[in-house]
Amino acid sequence: MNHAMVCYLVGWMLSVEGGILLLPMLTAVIYQEPIAFAYLAVSALCLVFSCLFTRCKPKNTRFYAREGFVTVSLCWIVLALTGALPFWLSGEIPSYVDALFESISGFTTTGATILGDVEALSHASLLWRSLTHWVGGMGVLVFMLAVLPLAGGQTIYLMRAESPGPSVNKLSPHLRDTAFILYAIYLGMTVLEIVLLLLGGMPLFDAVNTALATAGTGGFGIWNNSMAHYSGYYLQAVVTLFMILFGVNFNIYFLILTRRWKQALRIEELRVYLGVIAASALLIACNVRHLFGGFFDSLHHALFQVASIITTTGFATVDFNQWPAFSKCILVLLMFIGACAGSTGGGIKCSRVLLMCKSIKKEMQFLIHPRSVRVNKMDGRRVQHEVMRSVNVFLIAYLIIFILSTLALCLSSQDLVTNFTAVAATLNNVGPGLELVGPSSNFGFFDPLSKIVLMFNMLAGRLELFPMLLLFAPDTWRRNR
Amino acid sequence: MNHAMVCYLVGWMLSVEGGILLLPMLTAVIYQEPIAFAYLAVSALCLVFSCLFTRCKPKNTRFYAREGFVTVSLCWIVLALTGALPFWLSGEIPSYVDALFESISGFTTTGATILGDVEALSHASLLWRSLTHWVGGMGVLVFMLAVLPLAGGQTIYLMRAESPGPSVNKLSPHLRDTAFILYAIYLGMTVLEIVLLLLGGMPLFDAVNTALATAGTGGFGIWNNSMAHYSGYYLQAVVTLFMILFGVNFNIYFLILTRRWKQALRIEELRVYLGVIAASALLIACNVRHLFGGFFDSLHHALFQVASIITTTGFATVDFNQWPAFSKCILVLLMFIGACAGSTGGGIKCSRVLLMCKSIKKEMQFLIHPRSVRVNKMDGRRVQHEVMRSVNVFLIAYLIIFILSTLALCLSSQDLVTNFTAVAATLNNVGPGLELVGPSSNFGFFDPLSKIVLMFNMLAGRLELFPMLLLFAPDTWRRNR
Repeated sequence: MNHAMVCYLVGWMLSVEGGILLLPMLTAVIYQEPIAFAYLAVSALCLVFSCLFTRCKPKNTRFYAREGFVTVSLCWIVLALTGALPFWLSGEIPSYVDALFESISGFTTTGATILGDVEALSHASLLWRSLTHWVGGMGVLVFMLAVLPLAGGQTIYLMRAESPGPSVNKLSPHLRDTAFILYAIYLGMTVLEIVLLLLGGMPLFDAVNTALATAGTGGFGIWNNSMAHYSGYYLQAVVTLFMILFGVNFNIYFLILTRRWKQALRIEELRVYLGVIAASALLIACNVRHLFGGFFDSLHHALFQVASIITTTGFATVDFNQWPAFSKCILVLLMFIGACAGSTGGGIKCSRVLLMCKSIKKEMQFLIHPRSVRVNKMDGRRVQHEVMRSVNVFLIAYLIIFILSTLALCLSSQDLVTNFTAVAATLNNVGPGLELVGPSSNFGFFDPLSKIVLMFNMLAGRLELFPMLLLFAPDTWRRNR
Repeated sequence: MNHAMVCYLVGWMLSVEGGILLLPMLTAVIYQEPIAFAYLAVSALCLVFSCLFTRCKPKNTRFYAREGFVTVSLCWIVLALTGALPFWLSGEIPSYVDALFESISGFTTTGATILGDVEALSHASLLWRSLTHWVGGMGVLVFMLAVLPLAGGQTIYLMRAESPGPSVNKLSPHLRDTAFILYAIYLGMTVLEIVLLLLGGMPLFDAVNTALATAGTGGFGIWNNSMAHYSGYYLQAVVTLFMILFGVNFNIYFLILTRRWKQALRIEELRVYLGVIAASALLIACNVRHLFGGFFDSLHHALFQVASIITTTGFATVDFNQWPAFSKCILVLLMFIGACAGSTGGGIKCSRVLLMCKSIKKEMQFLIHPRSVRVNKMDGRRVQHEVMRSVNVFLIAYLIIFILSTLALCLSSQDLVTNFTAVAATLNNVGPGLELVGPSSNFGFFDPLSKIVLMFNMLAGRLELFPMLLLFAPDTWRRNR
C-alpha cells in the first residue's frame, strides 16, 4: 500500500471540498446569515489540511487497483466527515452523528434525512445539502480528475473505483477528457433544468436547489413536504423528466452529442430502463386510481414516484406509504433495480439486472441443448466472462451486506418492514422507505448503532460495495511485496 | 422431446403412488373409517392409468437432460394432482384447489396447510399427509429408480433433475445402487426415530407420523398446536436431533457407513451447517430469554425452532411470530439458507451459500492482487467453473421467482411481511412464515390465484427451479433435430 500517494490524493480532494464550501458561505453572506462563519471556518480547515497533505508530491508513484479503492473510500469518508462539520458547528444539527448521517446521505445522493423540520435550516445549509448531492452524484474524484492537473497511472483506478456500473467506458482516449466531458454534460443539463423550473415560476433559490438535488439523483428537498410543495403539473413534470434523464447512462448523451445516434439507440440498458419505468407507472396508476381524481392525475403521481424511486432520487409528491401493497411492492422492487450504469443514480443498476436475466435465458437454453454453444450478448457485443463474474459477485456481496445490515437494525426493535426498507433505501441510495421511514417521516429515531450501519450502507451503495469492503480486509493494508 | 418415454416413466411413477396409497387405506380399515373407499378408489385409478401408460416400452429410448427435466416436473405434478384426490373425494377438504395445495405442500415437504383444524381429519388422511412428506423428501423418482428395474440412460438425468444441490454425487458406480443406498439409510433413520419416540412414551400412530414428517423435513403435524402438544423435553429433543440429522447431506452417512471418517469430516458444508445452527440458536436464546423460565428453557426452544426452520421442516413448539424482530429476522434468514445439499431439506442450501461466500473472498483477493491466480476450493478440491456458474444462475432465478411471486401475492391486499414470508416459506419448502402465515395460523385465507402461485413456488423450490421453469420454455417442447 502506497500510503504517501493516498494521502496526497486525499489532500487534493480536500482542496476541492474547501473550494465548494465557499458557495454556501457566499449564500449565507447574501441572506445575511451568521452561519457564514461556520462555512468559512470549515473551508479554511480543508484548505490548510490540503496544503499539508499536498506539500510535496510522493516520489513513489506506484498506484494500482488496491490504492485506487482505498483512495476512493478514504476520500469519501473524509469528505463526509468534514462536510458534516458546518451543520454541527453552527448548532443546526446538535449531534455530530446526526450531522454525519446528513452529510453522508447528501454526498452519496441518498437523500435520507434525520431532520424533522427541514424548513428551519438556513439558506446556506440548504444549499450545502443540495451541493453535496451534485458533487456526490457524478463523483468528487471524477471532478478532481476533471479540474486538477493530476498526471500518472492513478486516474483509471480512481475512475473505476468511483464510477457506478459493471464497467467504465472511456469516452475519450484521455481519461481526463472523459471526466471533463462527463461534468460538462452534467452541468449543462443542470442549468437547463434550472431554466425550465424558473420558466414555471419557481423562485431562483428553489430552482437551483431542486435542480442540484435532481441532477445528483439525491432527493433532499427544501420543504418539509418535498415536491408536494409545488402543486400544479408543470413543475412536477419538469422534475419527473429530469429525474429520468439523470438516471440515463451518460455515455448515451456523449454518443448523441457526437451524433452517433445509431450507436446510442442500440444501448439495450436504455430500452430496459425506459420500459421498466413505463410499465411500473402504468401498473401503479391503475392500482391507485381510486386515490386520485382521474386516471391522468393518478398516472402523473405514479410516474413521478416511479421516476423518483428507480433513479433513487427520493423526492415525493404524495405519501406512497399509504398506497396499496401491490404499488408499494413495485416501488420496493424499483429501489433494487435502480438507474442505468454510468448515471448519477444508485441501486443494482439496469445493466446488471439485464445481464442477470440474460444469464438465466442462456442457462435454460443450455439445459435444453447441452451441446450447443451460446454466448451472452449485450448491445450486439459479446459479454466478457469477467463482466459476468463481477455482476454475480456484486449480487452476492450486495445480498450479504443487505442481510447483515437488516439483522443489525433488528437489534433495536422496529418492525421488519421499517428495517428492511431502511436498509433498501440507504444501500440503494434512494432515501425514503416504508412505514416509519416512509416519505413523510425521517431517520432521526434510529439509535446511534443503527445510524452507523445505515451510514456504512449509504457509502457502500454509492461506491458499489467493494471499495468499502476492502477497507476491512487485512490484505489491503499489507506492504507491497 | 421424446413424449413416449416421458409418458412411460410417468406411468411407472403412478404405479408407485398407487402402491403407497394402500397404506392409508389399510390404516382406515384398522381404524374402521369409511374413507378407506376413497383411498382404494384413487389407488385403483393410479394402477389402471399406470397399466395404460406402461403397456409397451417405447422403441425410441433417446433420453437426454431435457427429457429428464420434463419427466421429473410432470411426475411431480401428476403425483400431486392424484395425491389430492382422496382429500377431495372424501369431502375432508371440500375445495379441490385446497386439496391440491395440501397435497403439493406434502410432497414438496413444505408442510404449509390450509386446514384450520387438523385434528378433524381421519387417521388415514393424517398418515397420507405424513407419507407424502416421506416420499417427497428423498424423491419419488429416486424411489422408483431404487425399486423398479428401469434400465437405460435416463437414470442419471432423472437423479440430477430431482436431487437437491449443485451437483449429484454417485455413491456407487451404478446409479440404481446409489438410489437404493439412499433409501436404505433414509428408512433406517426413520425407524430409529420411531423407536426413540416410542421409548419416550409417544403413541405408535403419533410416533410414525412424526418420524415420517421429520424424515422428509416436512412439518405436517397431527395436532393443531404442532409439536407443542408433546410437552416435556425428551420428545422435543429427539425431534430436534432428527431434524438436524435429516438436514445433513446423505453422502456423509454413506461415508460413515463405509468407515471413511476422514473424508466425512472434511466436508465443509457440514461444518457450516452445524455452525450456523449453533450460532443462531445461541443468539436467539439470548434474545428471547425474557419469554421463558430460564436460559436452558429458552435455549431448548430456540434450538428446536432453529433446527425446524433451517432444515425447512416447519414444526413449532412455540408461536415464534410473537418473538422480537431480531429473532424473527434470523429465522427468516435461516429459511433462505436451508439445509445441506443432498439432504431432504429445502432452501438455497448451505453448500451454495458457502460457495457464494468463497467467491466474495476470492474476488476481494483478486481486487487487491490482480495478477495473482486464485481458485475456489471446497473440501480440498477445486470448484469447477460449471458448478460456480450454476450456483450464480440458481441465485438469480431464485430471486426473480421470489420477486414475481411476492408481487403476485400483493395483488390481494395482505401486508408485505405476510406476503414476503409466505413466498419464503413455500419457495424454501419451510411451511410457516410470519404474521398471517405464522406457526399458529394457516394458508387457508389466500385467494385461489395466490394459492396457485404458492403451489408453483413449492414445486419450483423442491425441484430447484429449473425443471419447473423449463416447462414454460417453448424450446423444451420442440421436436428433436
